[in-house]
Amino acid sequence: MSKNIAYVNNKFVNFLHATIHIEDRGLQFGDSVYEVIAFMNDNNFIDLDFHLERLKYSLKELDIKFKYKKKELITIFKKIIHSNKFINGIIYMQITRGVQNRSHAYKKNLKPTVIIYAKKTAFNTQKKIKGVNVITYEDYRWYRRDIKTTNLLPNILAEHEAHKKNAYTAILLKKNKITEGCHSNIWIIKNKKIYTHPSNTDILKGVTKKRLIYIIEEFGLELIEKSFTLKKLLNSDEVFLTSASSFVTPIIKVDSKLINKGKIGNITLRLSQLYYRSFRK
Amino acid sequence: MSKNIAYVNNKFVNFLHATIHIEDRGLQFGDSVYEVIAFMNDNNFIDLDFHLERLKYSLKELDIKFKYKKKELITIFKKIIHSNKFINGIIYMQITRGVQNRSHAYKKNLKPTVIIYAKKTAFNTQKKIKGVNVITYEDYRWYRRDIKTTNLLPNILAEHEAHKKNAYTAILLKKNKITEGCHSNIWIIKNKKIYTHPSNTDILKGVTKKRLIYIIEEFGLELIEKSFTLKKLLNSDEVFLTSASSFVTPIIKVDSKLINKGKIGNITLRLSQLYYRSFRK
Repeated sequence: MSKNIAYVNNKFVNFLHATIHIEDRGLQFGDSVYEVIAFMNDNNFIDLDFHLERLKYSLKELDIKFKYKKKELITIFKKIIHSNKFINGIIYMQITRGVQNRSHAYKKNLKPTVIIYAKKTAFNTQKKIKGVNVITYEDYRWYRRDIKTTNLLPNILAEHEAHKKNAYTAILLKKNKITEGCHSNIWIIKNKKIYTHPSNTDILKGVTKKRLIYIIEEFGLELIEKSFTLKKLLNSDEVFLTSASSFVTPIIKVDSKLINKGKIGNITLRLSQLYYRSFRK
Repeated sequence: MSKNIAYVNNKFVNFLHATIHIEDRGLQFGDSVYEVIAFMNDNNFIDLDFHLERLKYSLKELDIKFKYKKKELITIFKKIIHSNKFINGIIYMQITRGVQNRSHAYKKNLKPTVIIYAKKTAFNTQKKIKGVNVITYEDYRWYRRDIKTTNLLPNILAEHEAHKKNAYTAILLKKNKITEGCHSNIWIIKNKKIYTHPSNTDILKGVTKKRLIYIIEEFGLELIEKSFTLKKLLNSDEVFLTSASSFVTPIIKVDSKLINKGKIGNITLRLSQLYYRSFRK
């Protein structure tokens, strides 16, 4: 754990002593949502509006009544980043439904628990872009993957398996089709056409995905939002993943199969550069 | 919240100030398991061995390395119950994988977080047994329902819907078949035969279910562990649910359909009595 300050329920506290109650519904039921927001040069919050829009969606879908003002959140983010002297990193923000006598059914008008803290991070940017290996794993998640909740056990079991096999992450398979990665969206390129899973209840609406779609359109490549099989992925020219903290990361090996002979593809590299440039101030 | 004492990580603390760290994996990923154990007459822990056996199973399936001695746990349970002067109630026990720098993949040999506290409860026993209404709801849970984890969002959404409709709980439907309740097992009786879902990855292996199976066998009734449709349930003679804190509870209405004309069935009543007697000291 880093020695820094965190924000918990209207207070700035020493991160080491930042706690929540044992009857917080976030702990007892996973009754909470979260966002991870990257920042660069200490105050450039990447895709903040998209993240806040998705947060609002997650809260609404779970009927968690948390109101915030963007301006106030930015003030909190900045205070945390500046007191820790971070330059590049991520903001982690978790909202739980609040504390209640343990009972599956929740009371109306609980006071949500708000947790915000930051970590410094070295991003996978174009200056030192690396390709990664991934494994495939069965998609065991619940039905509503479109809500960014902390019910993440299926994700961590898959990710753990990936790390055991020295892979960067796992990509998830439902009835032999790729849904998404444990914490990323998956893209393939075949004959200069780009494919990715459509945003529905089967996957999370990726914030980085959203930005990249604009970039692909501007770049003039054809994008097809349609699910694809593992076989199609293994036979594609290039594969990559996107996430708020991984940006555009090339995938050069899936299980034991090399993609593009284990080299970073040209289109992926170009998209990675364009993505990075699109938010660099 | 009741004013009492709780046990968190080797310490007895005031329940109101019982906390865990914000980077506890139980909070950030639902990376934790739990058990709810009923007690009567302040030291009769109902089906304690079954609960501890299931806890061991859940921990093993998630690779959480928590070692305990039954004797030590009982000492903790008793200390909590006695200092709070509880007679009848439940012990809530949650084990998380522990605290770690946030990352989906977990480190080996983390120190698990242990949370234990008690609540007093009035049980649904034969002296004042009540029938309940339930609703049906889609079973949106993840694949491994056999592990008692705190990834409980699908359960609380279903339970919330039930409470909105003034029902006791929701029973879950997967492809038109009943799996189980939000926090109970479901049983139907037709022509003196008793049906319940088999214990596999689709449902939690109920501790109360396990005890009731012995009782049904001793009582000489035929038990068929096989999944059944909603239609079959609606046309059955009696319906009931079982759980560690609800014991044997008759269901007299499902959605808008009365079961057994809205009256508690004779076999359910008898099973409820036999169940209660089986552990009463």
